[in-house]
Amino acid sequence: MTTLEIQCAAVKRASRTLSIAGTAIKNRALESIARALIENQDKWLRANSQDLDAAKAQGMRPSLLDRLALTPERVSGVVEGLRQVAALPDPIGKVDRMETRPNGLIIGRRRVPLGVVAIIYEARPNVTVDAAALCLKSGNACVLRGGSEAIRSNRAAVEIMRDALADAGLPEDCIALVQDTSRETANELMGLDKYIDVLIPRGGAGLIRSVAKNASVPVIRTGEGVCHIYIDKDADLQMGAEILFNAKCSRPSVCNAAECVLVHRDIAKEFLAAAVPLLDRHEVELRCDGEALALLGSRGIPATEEDWDAEYGDYALAVRIVGSAGEAVDFINAHSTGHSESIVTRDYFTAQSFLDQVDAAAVYVNASTRFTDGGEFGLGAEIGISTQKMHARGPMGLEELTSCKYIIYGQGQVR
Amino acid sequence: MTTLEIQCAAVKRASRTLSIAGTAIKNRALESIARALIENQDKWLRANSQDLDAAKAQGMRPSLLDRLALTPERVSGVVEGLRQVAALPDPIGKVDRMETRPNGLIIGRRRVPLGVVAIIYEARPNVTVDAAALCLKSGNACVLRGGSEAIRSNRAAVEIMRDALADAGLPEDCIALVQDTSRETANELMGLDKYIDVLIPRGGAGLIRSVAKNASVPVIRTGEGVCHIYIDKDADLQMGAEILFNAKCSRPSVCNAAECVLVHRDIAKEFLAAAVPLLDRHEVELRCDGEALALLGSRGIPATEEDWDAEYGDYALAVRIVGSAGEAVDFINAHSTGHSESIVTRDYFTAQSFLDQVDAAAVYVNASTRFTDGGEFGLGAEIGISTQKMHARGPMGLEELTSCKYIIYGQGQVR
Repeated sequence: MTTLEIQCAAVKRASRTLSIAGTAIKNRALESIARALIENQDKWLRANSQDLDAAKAQGMRPSLLDRLALTPERVSGVVEGLRQVAALPDPIGKVDRMETRPNGLIIGRRRVPLGVVAIIYEARPNVTVDAAALCLKSGNACVLRGGSEAIRSNRAAVEIMRDALADAGLPEDCIALVQDTSRETANELMGLDKYIDVLIPRGGAGLIRSVAKNASVPVIRTGEGVCHIYIDKDADLQMGAEILFNAKCSRPSVCNAAECVLVHRDIAKEFLAAAVPLLDRHEVELRCDGEALALLGSRGIPATEEDWDAEYGDYALAVRIVGSAGEAVDFINAHSTGHSESIVTRDYFTAQSFLDQVDAAAVYVNASTRFTDGGEFGLGAEIGISTQKMHARGPMGLEELTSCKYIIYGQGQVR
Repeated sequence: MTTLEIQCAAVKRASRTLSIAGTAIKNRALESIARALIENQDKWLRANSQDLDAAKAQGMRPSLLDRLALTPERVSGVVEGLRQVAALPDPIGKVDRMETRPNGLIIGRRRVPLGVVAIIYEARPNVTVDAAALCLKSGNACVLRGGSEAIRSNRAAVEIMRDALADAGLPEDCIALVQDTSRETANELMGLDKYIDVLIPRGGAGLIRSVAKNASVPVIRTGEGVCHIYIDKDADLQMGAEILFNAKCSRPSVCNAAECVLVHRDIAKEFLAAAVPLLDRHEVELRCDGEALALLGSRGIPATEEDWDAEYGDYALAVRIVGSAGEAVDFINAHSTGHSESIVTRDYFTAQSFLDQVDAAAVYVNASTRFTDGGEFGLGAEIGISTQKMHARGPMGLEELTSCKYIIYGQGQVR
């Protein structure tokens, strides 16, 4: 067995204990981790500043350095998050659908953990604790594989968490970090379906597609967001301009930000006149089809075919004119990643038909796509936003980290 | 685009229409298919007898020939099944968890179809209609890829069904058959995640593992069944013998049949004395560990390592002596496929702890594993029995063929 196999086998064993641990012990472990992170924050911050030094020496961009950096405030945020997870209801153990069958068998469906959840992610070291906390509360052991840039920070955080688990009476192997951040080890992880029940890649589209293609472990694709705002001919145009501005500019790097606006031909000129002054505040680059370009003149630049499928993650926006709501729906269904889509309209029937026909995790009427988030949806916290239809769709909270098991009480029945 | 891509793209388009079709139109289509299969059964039976002739010429085994064969009675059974599916409640369109958030957004979670379901299966031609019916009722278009032995039967059935769909006002591309039954085309199908939302392989363990390994489309593994019966020291031994006999012998070829019995040392001699006379009725081959062999003498043969993971599908049984219920649980968790597991015991605490600790889709106390089945569980009909934890576990009925979509009604909210 390889080092990784030995490690994952130990996590699988630990998951058996964790899967039947009660809510009280899991909450005690979360509190124990919270306290340990506060008490040992110097260790975590020191490791992080080594990561930062190494990253600077390698010329990492300032925006990425910011994602990598921990501060005492960020540590407090992480600790606060742990306590919020502890306060959430435990999804494990609920039995729905229990019934007595005609032959006397009593059959119930019980919520159980998935088992071992592996997460492959990139720079942010707070993800290490956030993800471990959600897995722990939902009874899942986890294998964390963060990026090489954050390896010292992650190692420190996982050491602190494992010690705290042991203090709380749970096996420390409930939380494991893959020490080797090479691509080979990531590929090996994707094939360990004997030990890992589900793999969640969090990061760029390239990572996610490569995982979906190569993994034999079941995968949940998360966070690919090519989101659209469609401004209907019956839209409140000022509302449309504000929704577009918010969806594009409030945080362009995140997956629920808009990348493309579709504008109905009949109101295109008037709408762009209302929206462009807002977009100007961030000098948003407008990549336009021919018709939009004719309206925008030198404010726009011509779009290429790639623009209609691009996730810019930046102050850039594709702009396209359409002739009907139906055309907008078809375009969205052909080009979106199935994350979040919004229509701005006053028309009741157009709104309902958009809700029915657009195929995405979250479909909005008259609101910004930026609300697609576990907290905003009332799930408390999320481990990612699923853009696939299997298992979970949209923000994934604790319930989405569970499976079920049929339990059957018999009295000697045979068939 | 290849022939298969063109076909799957057409199915994807048809799935948009089907996904928003109401219950009435879907039930009308099911009834239309039922009537068409009766009216055209000569065509279907004729095609089937050509398949049978070809299979006989190639020397197919009688048990496989029986699986391939259609008769007027089997056609009636298929038609009856269609009408049962029509009578089941439609899972699509239900909204659970709708609530108004503090910012006024009204957020609901609506049940929607998965979209396009691909099914790769082997000889049985009735699966073609059963699977298409479950997909249709749950609003999913389907791509069927049956085995080459049944290609003429499948082609006839799909032609009849497509005509009936058109009569009922639904696109005929809601049901499609892959005409080329080569392995290359199956491999191509596994990569078409652009058009296919989920892939369900039904068949032997080899097929299922190969699909799970090679597919980039999300896969639901079904029907791998290495099931155990554990006879506890506190078992009613006669009950145990009858449960084991039923689980092994009532239909050894199916996935919920038992493959291995674990017997507590303290009652092993007495239990085997009760069970073996029943197993003798079918001359069940007993593959034993050393201790069991010592008790059974020439009635047993020595087991090899492979026997502890074997799905015989036949009148053969692995027999192993264990020292405790805990040892049985550990053995099961190491060797089962997570399908169905049963304990026979009178002890309350042993029973509860087996239910808690065994990691399988269905865990039984004092009953045969043979009950793991959509009909027996009250789901009405099933498309397979999932042995994975993601998305669905255990018998998959209509609800397991759905996903969800968040619908959000706003009044101009921005974040």
